[in-house]
Amino acid sequence: METQVQNEQIMTKEQLLAHWQGHRALTRRVIEAFPEQELFTFSVGGMRTFGELAAELIAIAVPGVKGLALGEWESLDEKDPSGKNKAKLLEIWDQDTVEINKWFPQIPEGRLQETMLAFGQYEDKGYCTLMYFIDNEIHHRGQGYVYLRALGIEPPAFWER
Amino acid sequence: METQVQNEQIMTKEQLLAHWQGHRALTRRVIEAFPEQELFTFSVGGMRTFGELAAELIAIAVPGVKGLALGEWESLDEKDPSGKNKAKLLEIWDQDTVEINKWFPQIPEGRLQETMLAFGQYEDKGYCTLMYFIDNEIHHRGQGYVYLRALGIEPPAFWER
Repeated sequence: METQVQNEQIMTKEQLLAHWQGHRALTRRVIEAFPEQELFTFSVGGMRTFGELAAELIAIAVPGVKGLALGEWESLDEKDPSGKNKAKLLEIWDQDTVEINKWFPQIPEGRLQETMLAFGQYEDKGYCTLMYFIDNEIHHRGQGYVYLRALGIEPPAFWER
Repeated sequence: METQVQNEQIMTKEQLLAHWQGHRALTRRVIEAFPEQELFTFSVGGMRTFGELAAELIAIAVPGVKGLALGEWESLDEKDPSGKNKAKLLEIWDQDTVEINKWFPQIPEGRLQETMLAFGQYEDKGYCTLMYFIDNEIHHRGQGYVYLRALGIEPPAFWER
């Protein structure tokens, strides 16, 4: 009986997509909250700027979902695709929102329980890889909150998605 | 056909429990990485100390899982249960690991898709509430990483659970 209950599933693919896009909308507001100069120059404790962290998130999101959908992985390219331009970064972010909505439903049934080598180097089950994309975004966005506070800027509310 | 695929589930309850406990093990290492004094005194940008953030996580975790299991919620009590004592905080963290493993399997089938008023004030579906506990931990732990870097301390690797 206990075993049956433990095999109960948590949420559907559609619900996780909505959950992630809610997080992505919040991350977008954090990018927006930075003054353009500080987005690409400011950090704390020798860490990367929030622009660099956002570039990492962009490098992971669409290539990651395409990798899960197609089972083909390219290596990670984390260089800033905006050329340190805030408007361009937000534009890429929005294009990626559409791309994620397009590719996510194409992740084949069963793929998330398969073991794979994401980006040719990270071996894990599909759902762990997908959760990593989201967790990594939350992790770095939390760091962006500290940067904003250190700049005297009120970050967007964490619970608003 | 598309609808069928989108209703596919992501992971089991057992897998999400392991995922969360992996995150909790990492958060424990972040608490451990702080010198005792800085754990309860240091922050950046006027934010809460990592000791206070950890107290919030403790206030949510076991009462939250018990709430999901029993359908009964008490109001949040975020005061530091350790009295600003690092060893005591880690001891409570470890006790909570056991409590979570005990209560999590008792979340009844279907509960995670029901709408509820968590802690008597946050209305959402059960799986969103549960994801919030985990996401909130990742968010605040990411902030702890910045505090550690600002203190010149190397944080534990994010990907090690």
